Amino acid sequence: MTNDLNVCLSPALIPLFKVEDYIVVIIDIFRATSSICYGIDNGAEAIIPVSQVEECAAYAEKGLDYLLAAERDGKVVEGFAGKTIVLTTTNGTHALHLSRGAKKVVIGSFLNLTSLCNWLNSQNENFLLVCAGWKNNFNLEDTLFAGAVADQLKHSNFKLDDAAIAANDLYQIGKYDINAYLKKTSHSERLKKLGIEKDIEFCLQVDLTTAIPVLDGEQLVRLSCSSK
Amino acid sequence: MTNDLNVCLSPALIPLFKVEDYIVVIIDIFRATSSICYGIDNGAEAIIPVSQVEECAAYAEKGLDYLLAAERDGKVVEGFAGKTIVLTTTNGTHALHLSRGAKKVVIGSFLNLTSLCNWLNSQNENFLLVCAGWKNNFNLEDTLFAGAVADQLKHSNFKLDDAAIAANDLYQIGKYDINAYLKKTSHSERLKKLGIEKDIEFCLQVDLTTAIPVLDGEQLVRLSCSSK
Repeated sequence: MTNDLNVCLSPALIPLFKVEDYIVVIIDIFRATSSICYGIDNGAEAIIPVSQVEECAAYAEKGLDYLLAAERDGKVVEGFAGKTIVLTTTNGTHALHLSRGAKKVVIGSFLNLTSLCNWLNSQNENFLLVCAGWKNNFNLEDTLFAGAVADQLKHSNFKLDDAAIAANDLYQIGKYDINAYLKKTSHSERLKKLGIEKDIEFCLQVDLTTAIPVLDGEQLVRLSCSSK
Repeated sequence: MTNDLNVCLSPALIPLFKVEDYIVVIIDIFRATSSICYGIDNGAEAIIPVSQVEECAAYAEKGLDYLLAAERDGKVVEGFAGKTIVLTTTNGTHALHLSRGAKKVVIGSFLNLTSLCNWLNSQNENFLLVCAGWKNNFNLEDTLFAGAVADQLKHSNFKLDDAAIAANDLYQIGKYDINAYLKKTSHSERLKKLGIEKDIEFCLQVDLTTAIPVLDGEQLVRLSCSSK
């Protein structure tokens, strides 16, 4: 039987899919899912994504084991091994929340691309790649990553929907220099204005990590071998 | 000042845009907007898009001047010169309805591509290209057409959003043989099963017509020179 490889280009389109039928991959390249992959790979015990800074601060009162991290600082936080990190991420949290009912919700970014795809390939399931986008709208960086996943899976007899075909074709255009390709996008421009080009470069590193973060209740934790 | 050239990849994303700020182009290549361009170009006085067949039938009782047309028959209807046509089109009607508040709502398809782009180029406005999609989800054929419009306008100093960039890049891949490119899509497969490949070919003819249908109340009529 052929499994489906579908791409959901915006959280606003998630209700069109019956998430219960899928393993969902959440994608928020700049920067939530990149930070999450890095944090979990480097020993954070768990990451709790929240959408409001206030919500984040509320965790601070709970005790010293919680480390707070704004999305933009995900990569520079030091000493989080063994800690639980509370991460503010608007688009990412929104996408996660809407995908809660899925068979499993895992986190993807260029940082864990191959590791993620190898694991997906070992699962005989339908996949829904959910682009967190920007304020519920389409964005290129998340779509390009969805295309990178489709590129690694497409020969495994999946049925790609139109969005997966488009994402993969866009990835073929951009793959030789993703950073250069994304330079023309709106979000990249926005981030550049904030003076965080280095964050962009960080998020576009392929296979820097191997951990696959998975949603467990409210927390993201490292997918263990037994989950395979 | 630079105007915006934005692409809305699904009717579900229309609420993200302030349509009052735009001239909206509705795109539903297979087949509503292709049929509408053909009908208006060939002398139909007006076309009333409805989403329910029952609604369509209700018009039948109003008198002989109304011609009924299911979307799939748009191109084969004969003798509609001077008549008002009631056309059932689910995705197209949905997109039109949500775009009602725009500065102007016009209809685009490969049939009137250049004529439409020439007119758009004469307007000093922001444009929102709305893909009617399939049941509120993304589809490739409407996106590809949005890319074709972006391709003709992109040198006129518009600011393209991510979706417009993506649509244009996809068009660059598909433009030399749009029919072949779309063969891999879901909708094309669906239409093929219905045995209407000829409809597909019909809808992909570039510049067969010159009329620009425009929304006037509940009806689509020919854009007159004075509207320029």
